[in-house]
Amino acid sequence: MSFKVRQEIATCGGKLLKLSHFSELIGLSMDVNVYLPKQYYSKDYEKVIPTVYYLSGLTCSPDNASEKAFWQFQADKYGFGMVFPDTSPRGDSVPDDPEKSWDFGIAASFYVNATKKPYDKHYMMYDYIHKELPVLLDEHFSESSTKKLDFLDNVGITGHSMGGYGALTGFLKNYDANRYKSCSAFAPIVNPSSVPWGQKAFKGYLSDDENDWDKYDPCKLIKRITNTRNDMILIHQGTKDPFLKDNLKTDLLTEASKNTSWEGKIDIRYADGYDHSYFFVSTFVPDHARFHAKNLGLI
Amino acid sequence: MSFKVRQEIATCGGKLLKLSHFSELIGLSMDVNVYLPKQYYSKDYEKVIPTVYYLSGLTCSPDNASEKAFWQFQADKYGFGMVFPDTSPRGDSVPDDPEKSWDFGIAASFYVNATKKPYDKHYMMYDYIHKELPVLLDEHFSESSTKKLDFLDNVGITGHSMGGYGALTGFLKNYDANRYKSCSAFAPIVNPSSVPWGQKAFKGYLSDDENDWDKYDPCKLIKRITNTRNDMILIHQGTKDPFLKDNLKTDLLTEASKNTSWEGKIDIRYADGYDHSYFFVSTFVPDHARFHAKNLGLI
Repeated sequence: MSFKVRQEIATCGGKLLKLSHFSELIGLSMDVNVYLPKQYYSKDYEKVIPTVYYLSGLTCSPDNASEKAFWQFQADKYGFGMVFPDTSPRGDSVPDDPEKSWDFGIAASFYVNATKKPYDKHYMMYDYIHKELPVLLDEHFSESSTKKLDFLDNVGITGHSMGGYGALTGFLKNYDANRYKSCSAFAPIVNPSSVPWGQKAFKGYLSDDENDWDKYDPCKLIKRITNTRNDMILIHQGTKDPFLKDNLKTDLLTEASKNTSWEGKIDIRYADGYDHSYFFVSTFVPDHARFHAKNLGLI
Repeated sequence: MSFKVRQEIATCGGKLLKLSHFSELIGLSMDVNVYLPKQYYSKDYEKVIPTVYYLSGLTCSPDNASEKAFWQFQADKYGFGMVFPDTSPRGDSVPDDPEKSWDFGIAASFYVNATKKPYDKHYMMYDYIHKELPVLLDEHFSESSTKKLDFLDNVGITGHSMGGYGALTGFLKNYDANRYKSCSAFAPIVNPSSVPWGQKAFKGYLSDDENDWDKYDPCKLIKRITNTRNDMILIHQGTKDPFLKDNLKTDLLTEASKNTSWEGKIDIRYADGYDHSYFFVSTFVPDHARFHAKNLGLI
């Protein structure tokens, strides 16, 4: 069995599984939480259960969103599973920020494949999230269950802050291949190349070549898409978010989408008075859940 | 202003206020979180908004339940406020367990008025929760708002573990005076005098006189009630709760209620496979919210 179940927690109508598994790509054991909704445990439910990947923000583990975002009630409502991956490799052998800051290194991978030493050894988070992990989950649950869970095809992606950025990047980079069927984000970084958090990450993990940065920048990626499906991206952004002005700059994505196939399709909803916390995220999870449920054909 | 607003957080349709205030009884500053539901901020809403007090369990501050129990959505649904008091006095001058355990001393007051030295100086949590705090909240919000919030009369009480015990105790001790209109509990300690957690607390905070212990023991208090209103108490208890067998022993309350006016009125719902965590609490908050809303005349 490729996944070790560290904990199995009954919650809402389903179960939250706290899993660990070895990642060949990262070269280490990784933690991931998976919520299986009540439909998974219902004998009578015969539909395939799609999944939504939730990428967490700076400083988080898979547990924060599992405890505070309250996707579980919504997953039960519509019948989708949730995957909460970790935010970076972890352990004594993993190089951290020499300055031990919270916005670089451990729990701050920015979901890229690092090319710069010493991070290039373990920080392969882009390929881990979008390639290795889904395949391993699919293999594991296909073997261990008769109920069909879909981790690979009819799937959505979302995330918060750095994780919202990770979701947008993964969605847009793979848009022409139709990898994800749905994408939303909570207070995402949209243009990392131009803001302090992103610049620090890209300088640390990537080469100094601008082209390398563009490959991970939603505001650049959105201009390269050729496929013209009629998708929308849903974004919520609190107006009292202390990071909005300097690091998130949500409007830059609308700006970047102009004169592309995405013009008018970025649905940014500014939430008056809301901050950057899970109190903000959890408030709008029901809206995002409905959005993904619709895109995944559940309603 | 008797309450200092440390933080005001927009969440769900209302606001979570993180407050601090000086307690004469305890002789120190105390923290308390208050959730004001969306109805509080609606111009058109004219009904009085009742409140539900949620007493937290061992090791908790007012923040744990505010972040993880998800009362807020339910408070909005029915139109009640929430009060999340702290679990003990705190600070350098507060005597803690000399052994620094997690089940006695700071964050483990058991919501009693301590009579034993050195705890008798600050650990006046029973009077603080059931007398001083509600009056101070009433005064503060009567002065600072035109909208009527009810912290004193049409109120409910609930809690988790040690807090479930605190809720049952406060409800039953004041039942004949009709102090609380509604009581529920999540995995409460029901018979502290007979279990390790309760015995340690009572030995530490109270005299060795059995009569002193009885005054804070739901299984004793339930036998003393003379009023025969037709109330119910709602309790959820997870069957995989690791504390059930030795410390919670929920069935003892049913046992104690036999041949009293409470016989058949303790609605204990065993939740198959659920543990003692907030994953358990949050799962059943919607049921408890509905229960309190009904008892408070909101539905």
